[in-house]
Amino acid sequence: MAEPNRRRIDTVLMVGKRDSPEALLAVRRVARLVEGRGAEVVFDARTARALGRRASPATAARAGLCVVVGGDGTLLSAARSIAAHPVPILGINLGGLGFMAETAPAEAASALKEILEGRFDISQRMTLDVTLLRHARPVARQSVLNDVVITKSALARIIDLRVSIDRQMLTVYRADGLIVSTPTGSTAYSLSAGGPIIHPEMAALLICPICPHTLTMRPVVVPAAAKVEVTLQTGDSEVYLTLDGQVGHPLRAGDRVRVRQGAIPVLMVRSRRRNYFEVLRRKLRWGGR
Amino acid sequence: MAEPNRRRIDTVLMVGKRDSPEALLAVRRVARLVEGRGAEVVFDARTARALGRRASPATAARAGLCVVVGGDGTLLSAARSIAAHPVPILGINLGGLGFMAETAPAEAASALKEILEGRFDISQRMTLDVTLLRHARPVARQSVLNDVVITKSALARIIDLRVSIDRQMLTVYRADGLIVSTPTGSTAYSLSAGGPIIHPEMAALLICPICPHTLTMRPVVVPAAAKVEVTLQTGDSEVYLTLDGQVGHPLRAGDRVRVRQGAIPVLMVRSRRRNYFEVLRRKLRWGGR
Amino acid sequence: MAEPNRRRIDTVLMVGKRDSPEALLAVRRVARLVEGRGAEVVFDARTARALGRRASPATAARAGLCVVVGGDGTLLSAARSIAAHPVPILGINLGGLGFMAETAPAEAASALKEILEGRFDISQRMTLDVTLLRHARPVARQSVLNDVVITKSALARIIDLRVSIDRQMLTVYRADGLIVSTPTGSTAYSLSAGGPIIHPEMAALLICPICPHTLTMRPVVVPAAAKVEVTLQTGDSEVYLTLDGQVGHPLRAGDRVRVRQGAIPVLMVRSRRRNYFEVLRRKLRWGGR
Amino acid sequence: MAEPNRRRIDTVLMVGKRDSPEALLAVRRVARLVEGRGAEVVFDARTARALGRRASPATAARAGLCVVVGGDGTLLSAARSIAAHPVPILGINLGGLGFMAETAPAEAASALKEILEGRFDISQRMTLDVTLLRHARPVARQSVLNDVVITKSALARIIDLRVSIDRQMLTVYRADGLIVSTPTGSTAYSLSAGGPIIHPEMAALLICPICPHTLTMRPVVVPAAAKVEVTLQTGDSEVYLTLDGQVGHPLRAGDRVRVRQGAIPVLMVRSRRRNYFEVLRRKLRWGGR
Repeated sequence: MAEPNRRRIDTVLMVGKRDSPEALLAVRRVARLVEGRGAEVVFDARTARALGRRASPATAARAGLCVVVGGDGTLLSAARSIAAHPVPILGINLGGLGFMAETAPAEAASALKEILEGRFDISQRMTLDVTLLRHARPVARQSVLNDVVITKSALARIIDLRVSIDRQMLTVYRADGLIVSTPTGSTAYSLSAGGPIIHPEMAALLICPICPHTLTMRPVVVPAAAKVEVTLQTGDSEVYLTLDGQVGHPLRAGDRVRVRQGAIPVLMVRSRRRNYFEVLRRKLRWGGR
Repeated sequence: MAEPNRRRIDTVLMVGKRDSPEALLAVRRVARLVEGRGAEVVFDARTARALGRRASPATAARAGLCVVVGGDGTLLSAARSIAAHPVPILGINLGGLGFMAETAPAEAASALKEILEGRFDISQRMTLDVTLLRHARPVARQSVLNDVVITKSALARIIDLRVSIDRQMLTVYRADGLIVSTPTGSTAYSLSAGGPIIHPEMAALLICPICPHTLTMRPVVVPAAAKVEVTLQTGDSEVYLTLDGQVGHPLRAGDRVRVRQGAIPVLMVRSRRRNYFEVLRRKLRWGGR
Repeated sequence: MAEPNRRRIDTVLMVGKRDSPEALLAVRRVARLVEGRGAEVVFDARTARALGRRASPATAARAGLCVVVGGDGTLLSAARSIAAHPVPILGINLGGLGFMAETAPAEAASALKEILEGRFDISQRMTLDVTLLRHARPVARQSVLNDVVITKSALARIIDLRVSIDRQMLTVYRADGLIVSTPTGSTAYSLSAGGPIIHPEMAALLICPICPHTLTMRPVVVPAAAKVEVTLQTGDSEVYLTLDGQVGHPLRAGDRVRVRQGAIPVLMVRSRRRNYFEVLRRKLRWGGR
Repeated sequence: MAEPNRRRIDTVLMVGKRDSPEALLAVRRVARLVEGRGAEVVFDARTARALGRRASPATAARAGLCVVVGGDGTLLSAARSIAAHPVPILGINLGGLGFMAETAPAEAASALKEILEGRFDISQRMTLDVTLLRHARPVARQSVLNDVVITKSALARIIDLRVSIDRQMLTVYRADGLIVSTPTGSTAYSLSAGGPIIHPEMAALLICPICPHTLTMRPVVVPAAAKVEVTLQTGDSEVYLTLDGQVGHPLRAGDRVRVRQGAIPVLMVRSRRRNYFEVLRRKLRWGGR
């Protein structure tokens, strides 16, 4: 499930949470830590601009590590932007422990010391490759780390979503919507919709209806290799496709959303301070009622 | 919970499902049954138009019974339109058993015979009186039999809804939305959102969050006399108020939705062929898995 | 929902958690507070014995207030023992906030000051009167404040429980067991079994199956006046009836458990420091995930 | 996920549901079908006895196919008894469609024709190897296809079950019990306890608490290679270990239940008449409410 890593890191790409002065402060502090250990720091375009620095070209391609300062949302967006490059990501949270942004600011110095020397494990997270097909032609395509969500707006009546897996019909969901999620995404929106927790390093897809009309419909877990296709059967225009929390596209009746396992996984630096189960216990406050 | 009734019925108001030729046929058939038993039939404006008949004035005020032909949706809408008049409603379903439209077309003749002679029980259903307040001023007001739903659209981020009961804060729901339902409405949308079933003749309000972020949030049942107020705290404009399934109003941050028990209950004719529990068992297919 | 109260209290019955030295210390401290305010303190038999005091006769009949030091379990048991007498109960918790034992030890002094002067509100909690019938003859009878639970042991196969309400069949539950709970009991075991939260001052019964085989079976709320009867249909002997958490009786096939609203409610002193919703928010950690 | 198979089958092992005259009739009918196609039929010891036939030695070792007539329970038990031999199993149901016993009696003839000619696909189902450790010494060991269940009896108070995965603590479940299930077992008991549906050909373990005290505890899916260990922390003796529905052992405080992926999967003949999703839709009545 994890791969040891021993290569020294020379270049670190830093990404800060958008419009957050607190994140910028932390980015500066972490950048000094990195430079103090003899590695070069580069910034993504937006963070560079916010810091008044020049953006370096091809930052992700050159970096041996990407440090994201912010919450899970910032990390999702950074992961998307470096998706083509297998750069391990370290998430430093600001407001509190994240499912992905596991490292607290106070732990950053000691964590970076080890990581820059190449002493860290990598947690591979599968992604989803999503294609929106209209009249059988691809009109949009994107990679996601968390989830693909199809939801109706308040203005739409209940919608019918036909799901097939490997060309076999699973069912037609009559529901408010549907989530197709990675194991990483199982602790995001899907959890609120009643989904199970799936260990983030598994290879699996989770199909979770949102408020299904049929009460016996339960979340379904299928192998990562499953070819999932969701067809919007209803004629209502107020249905939207949301990818990793970013509203992508209004859907029309007959539109098909094709979901496949992504070719390139996201690489996360595994914390040596806390394992995944500890994060789970703290985030979900297990131990209390 | 039920009141016997012994008054002969002279005038019957008939309402058919909109745009449904099948409903019109059934309306005609039922009208002949009623007239054959010596009672007068009047039609609501739309049904009269569809049948090429003249609409009678003040139909609800004169009627001793309202016969609705269609599903639960048609019945909800008819109940709203006669809300000011305490007319018992008989629902004749077309496509299949409804929670409210309990009587099958084949049972209509024998049911009507008894009812027109005054031999029937009435099931009183509490309603909700809903007021939308903007800057502390009422901008809309309506009575509902099923539910008040506040939902975000796909374009809105998660919303914060502050709920108070009798001026005491219950909690702030961070969720996709919130349902405040009557017992009658507990088997409608609320059931899909995870709510319990409440006997329709109870006096109670059900507060049920939709996909709440906090996993310990459960549906809450409060006395019918509770003064419930829901305030939209988020600044996002893509939030809507839906009343008995009819989208009413886009909500703005600060808008308050005030919910009170309605002054006038809806009166439903109780079927003598099946009690509420039988409807429950059949609709929810209890007995199978 | 609440009744103001203005009578000065002369005699206080004190009950401490069983086998808890910490509770005894707190009982002594509270007794001194009460006596310091000029009221007499009496102890229930067990607490008297533990303190090396003499038990007074007819303690509950003479008391104007019952102070329970311990958790919700101690309070349930005290409520049972004084069930015949309408004595308001104040619960002082030790380990942490309880749903019923709402008052912290540090708040005891100021709370008692007000209460002894008669300045407090009473929260009326409905109870259940439970009768176990075997071959149509009552073999046991008890009053409960929280819940009636019928569960199979691991040694029994799945059981069939036929539930009728006012002599009409609700359904046959094929399940691990069934909970019939008061509103007060809705935040106890029923919550773990998927039940809703019912405001504790409501008059209602909650019927909640435990792990039902049929997935569409949901908790059902019925009026307090409903006459609920549960019949064990299965021939397996490893089924038990548990009343307020105390295992009462092994059940046999054909046994019937009759549940009615109790004639005498339990009276709880309402905290002026926190309302029910605050207790709910704190106990269920609303506000987090 | 499936393996084509082309070897002709010479010997068929038949197993009938225990104490079921209907099953014996069906076994005789199927045996004639098999013999009519030139293959030899052997019976397991109990079925042979019930038919008044002689049991053949080493039946499973010689068979190319095992035909089970009965429900999912009979199939589970047959799978256990031939666990050491990789014999594909065909389940013929009697009372109705099973999740595993997919083939209806009326379909048996045509199904067997194809299968005996070697024209069928195999569905590999992972198993669990369960060891009960007391004072660190194995006191029992068994293979299961569905689930490992630890439950308290009605006489026990709530129990504490500490779960570790690969020697890291997951959490301590305070609950009525715990289910560790295979994907095949996800549609058995786990579904009633709120678990998700996992495609039966996946390699995964499902950990599902029964009525957990902590409301944020959700079913957890981990990789099949995970080494799961459950320790009973409570001192109560009324806790039992149940394996594939057969009560195995009373547990004591400190007992550990070690669960590993089994070395030998169970091989099921895949129906060509209906795929898994169709079974799911029919068993769970998807399409209705």
